[in-house]
Order: sequence, then structure tokens, then C-alpha cells
Amino acid sequence: MAAQGRASVAVDAMSGDGGLDTTLSAVRRALRSDPGLRVDLVGDVARLRALLRAAGLDEGDRVELVAADQVLPMDAGPAHALRQGRGSSMQVALERVAAGRSSSVVSAGNTGALMALSRQVLGMLPGIERPVLMAALPTAGGSVWALDLGANVGVNAHRLCEFAQLGNTAVRVLRDRSPRIGLLNIGHEPNKGPDVVREAARLIEAEAGLDFTGFVEADQVFAGEVDLVVCDGFAGNVLLKSAEGMVRLIFGQLREEMRGWRGAVVRGGLRRMYDKLDPARHNGAPLLGVHGIVIKSHGGACERGFASAIGLAALEARRNLIPELEEALWASY
Amino acid sequence: MAAQGRASVAVDAMSGDGGLDTTLSAVRRALRSDPGLRVDLVGDVARLRALLRAAGLDEGDRVELVAADQVLPMDAGPAHALRQGRGSSMQVALERVAAGRSSSVVSAGNTGALMALSRQVLGMLPGIERPVLMAALPTAGGSVWALDLGANVGVNAHRLCEFAQLGNTAVRVLRDRSPRIGLLNIGHEPNKGPDVVREAARLIEAEAGLDFTGFVEADQVFAGEVDLVVCDGFAGNVLLKSAEGMVRLIFGQLREEMRGWRGAVVRGGLRRMYDKLDPARHNGAPLLGVHGIVIKSHGGACERGFASAIGLAALEARRNLIPELEEALWASY
Repeated sequence: MAAQGRASVAVDAMSGDGGLDTTLSAVRRALRSDPGLRVDLVGDVARLRALLRAAGLDEGDRVELVAADQVLPMDAGPAHALRQGRGSSMQVALERVAAGRSSSVVSAGNTGALMALSRQVLGMLPGIERPVLMAALPTAGGSVWALDLGANVGVNAHRLCEFAQLGNTAVRVLRDRSPRIGLLNIGHEPNKGPDVVREAARLIEAEAGLDFTGFVEADQVFAGEVDLVVCDGFAGNVLLKSAEGMVRLIFGQLREEMRGWRGAVVRGGLRRMYDKLDPARHNGAPLLGVHGIVIKSHGGACERGFASAIGLAALEARRNLIPELEEALWASY
Repeated sequence: MAAQGRASVAVDAMSGDGGLDTTLSAVRRALRSDPGLRVDLVGDVARLRALLRAAGLDEGDRVELVAADQVLPMDAGPAHALRQGRGSSMQVALERVAAGRSSSVVSAGNTGALMALSRQVLGMLPGIERPVLMAALPTAGGSVWALDLGANVGVNAHRLCEFAQLGNTAVRVLRDRSPRIGLLNIGHEPNKGPDVVREAARLIEAEAGLDFTGFVEADQVFAGEVDLVVCDGFAGNVLLKSAEGMVRLIFGQLREEMRGWRGAVVRGGLRRMYDKLDPARHNGAPLLGVHGIVIKSHGGACERGFASAIGLAALEARRNLIPELEEALWASY
């Protein structure tokens, strides 16, 4: 992606299972591929400074170190984060955005903590009550976005329609064209599924400016029939995790089978496929509904995965996601 | 599986996408592998008789033709079936069981129609209101059963506990040992997920005789950490279909990749894996809660798949599934 102007991403450097090495290599990769990018590394400045040089990075115009004394542990949920988040690398990174000093945040910390702190520090967009998490799943042709994956359960039809609006704008901004939207259900016919899903279909259908294609079943999601799948956080989690479990199962068995096969061609081909298909590697999940750009990176993301989350954060900033979302939300009232 | 005594399975011969050829070959395969098995072929007797010989079957002690004038189309839902099911091959097959002339039914017809007609013709087990569908999913070590996959949506905690009881007895009967039971959720911690799922966990936990291991996430299902997964019909459908979609996506891409690879070893290995892993091929889904043994076969099942559904119907009859279920249900009140 070509850089279009400047963007500064605050990276919660202390988050993630890969440690600082992975994070710093990812930052270097992101900076090399995007000359307009600046990164604010938020965390333990002494440790960061000690590692910076070895990672091929210099403090200066493009890399700023921002001190944060605390780290939220990976198992810190929303309640813990709200009580003890002050001074943590996650909160300090979010405060950079709130203060207008960074254009977006990337964190690989606990999802619930990130949602709670984002809401507290950045506030919500007009009419939105809780943040929603959107993630990409692999398809035959590329990928499809799905939301919610942020544990919003027991939502009503109105909120599902809200998910469709948020997702529609975000995907339009990211892909530069309006997404075909499907509502996850257990059949195509209008009488299928729970009341709340059928009611949501009526609301989304009635919404101007949404390219709603109707119900979509979980297997069609991976066939690439839509660009955006709307569902509650329970179904979204099952959709994503079931696919992840199946990918792991298949490639586990392929590795077993492969012992009998010869040739690096096969092995190389399989590795490429795995990289492309593992939902866990489609890294960088936009948190939508908060008044600022926040990207959740997978806790176990590799260097390349973390770098692409940083790239996504920069892209959303350059394409003015937040003003676009505000405009769309006001227009829908 | 060794035959243990006699079993007679009524086969809804007019159902399924594969046509009569597939059905009859499947019947021959099932009869050959199980000397104690008898099959009642329910459908258009003239057509069946014309094809019987070519399929290597003879009317006689082990194959009986049972006349049914009508066929329910594959898209006939519950309402259509209840209005117009009379005289259909599905209904006549179920009536054979109600009359005690067959020990179980296999049908590849519409799931909703089969659920509605089973309930009407066979009646329900004590305290059960609606039938539940259980299906097997592939795991690293073999397979795991999951229920509900029969579109029971918006169920309360009490019904989820009922699913656990029905599934527990059915899997115990099929596998000859008590299953480890997991409740599908979006996290492990007791405070995760919707109220109804957390309440169901308390009910299942309190139930004597259930080996409840707690919450299970969708990806762990395929790792074989439990033998039985309990969920509502919406989540169950997403779980199953998401895995199916991913299997199709991966093997589609493997076929592409394979063009560059040489050797029948690879191709043969992949075909074996696909057969083992495609959830759609784990054929034979027991319908539970009705007062009789009913197995739903996948509409697109191949000869081997349909034969294994017949084998499952015979096994459940021989192991006295219905008396076992009745006993377990009475004991739980």
C-alpha cells in the first residue's frame, strides 16, 4: 500500500506473547514499508531503549519512546483494567490518541481490557453504547470481515443493525468500495432463525446506503459470497474459533501425512497455504464504536502479523475513519 | 461392528440427492457387513422392484418392500410435512417404527420435515417438548458428538440441560462409556458468555451422572477435548457449517496447489484426509427426544455414508437406546 501522507501509530509495546523482540521487528518492518509512518512505542523506556539499536531502530523523528510504568497482564479483564489500568502501556497509548498526539493505537493486550479502556479513555461515537470488534476471515478470493467478535452477547435487533452500519463504513473506508453485507443465520429463508435475527434483517434492509444481501450461512462465509458478516459476539466467536480449530486439525493431519511425501514443493506450498488460511494470522482487528482508531492485534501474532496491524492502524487514520463513521451515524438518525 | 442379534431398519428410500442407485447400493453394503440386519425399503414399490436385482438385492427375508405413494420434496419444511406428509415414504417409514414392525428409521429427507413428522408419528419421550438433532464432528483422535443441530433456537437453560441428558445417554449407548461433556461458550471462565449458558452450566453441573467438564470454546471442540458438546441450535449450526466451509476452502486450495505436485501418494493421502475430516461425511445424525429411533442421513451422502447411517440405526436399536433414554429421563425428575 502506498503511503498517503503522515500517520503516527501508538504501539502498546508491552502487550503480546511474542515479547519486545517481535514487537520491535514488526515496527521496523512497518516503518520500512511506509515512509510516511511514525511510531510511538509506549512502555518501559529503559528496556525499549536497550533493545532499540539491536532491532535496527533509532529514536528520532520516526520513533518516539513514551513512558508507561505498568503492564496489564494478558489475563486482565475489563474490571481489572478499569481499576488498575492507570499508567499501563495500554492506557497511556490510548491517552496519546485522546490527546491528539497519535492518530491510532495498536495493542495485543487482553481484548476485554482494550475494549473497556478504549471506551473510558476515548469515549463513544454518537449513539453507540459498547465497542464492537471486527476481524477478517479467509475466503477463496481473499478475506471477509465479520463483526461482532468482541463478546457483545444477548444483543437486540437494533444493535445488530448498528453493527452493520459501523462495519459498512469501516470496510468501505478500508476497501474503497461498499461491502456486500450478510446477516449470519441458520438458513436463507426469511422465516429461518431467531426472532432477533429476523427483526435485524428488516432493520438492515430498511437502512439506506447498505448493500444488504440477506441471510448468510456459516459455510458460505468462507466462500466469499459477502464482504461483511454481521452477527452477535457469541455466534461470531463460534464462527471464528470453529474455523481456527478446523484449520489446526487439518494442517496437523497434513503434517502427519506429509512424512510419507517427498519434496520441498509440497512443504513450501502447504506453509504458504497455512499462512493464508489460518484465521489467527489474519491479524489486526479494528475496534469500532469508540471515538478513536484502535486495532487489536492477536496476542500470538508474528512479526509480519503485528506489522500488518500497524499498517491497518495507519490506513484507518489516513482514510479518516472516525469522521466517516460520525457522518454515517448522524445520517442514520 | 459385530452384529448382536437382529435389527430391522426402515429406510426412507425416496429421500436424498443421490437417487435410488446410491440408496440401494448403501443398503447392500449395510446388509453385507451385518448378517443380523433386515431392511424395509419404503417407497415406490414398482421402481424399487425394477432396480433391486441390478443393485444385487433380493426381496425376501432380509429385504422387504413397503409401499408409499408420495415423496416429500427436499425443500418441504415442517408445516408442509405435517399438512401433506400422509402417505409419504418418510411418514410410512416412521409408522413402521410406531407399529413395532421396524426398529428404527433412516431418512435423508428435509431435517425440519423429519423432526415434525417424527414428533407427530412417534410422540415424545417423557418431559421432552421438541426433538433435538445430534451430529458427529471430526477431531484429531476421531470424532465428537454435538447437539443441538436441529434448529432449536432461543432455548432456555433447562432445555440446554435436557440436551446434555439426551446426548449423554445416546453417546454412552453408542460408545459404551460415559462421555465427557462440554458446554459451548466463548471463554472458559465462569463469568463468560450469555446468562442462559452460565445458568445451564449450573444445572448440568448439579445433574448426577453427567461427566461435565465445563465450558468449551469452538476451536477446542476439534481438538477432541470432550466427547459431547452441548449448545443451542443456532450456535450448533454455526459450529458445524463454519467447519464445513473451512474444510471446503482448504481442500479447494489444496487441489489448486496440487497441480504443481507430482505423485499419487499425495493425492491419495489428501483424498483419505478429506474423507475423514469433512463434517458432511460424518454421516448419520440421531434425532433424540422422540419415542423411537430416527437417524437423519445427509442429503448428499454417498453410498458409504448412507450405509453407515443404517448401521447407526441398527446399533441404537440393539443397544436399546429408547428404554435407556426413558430410564435416564425418569431418574432425572
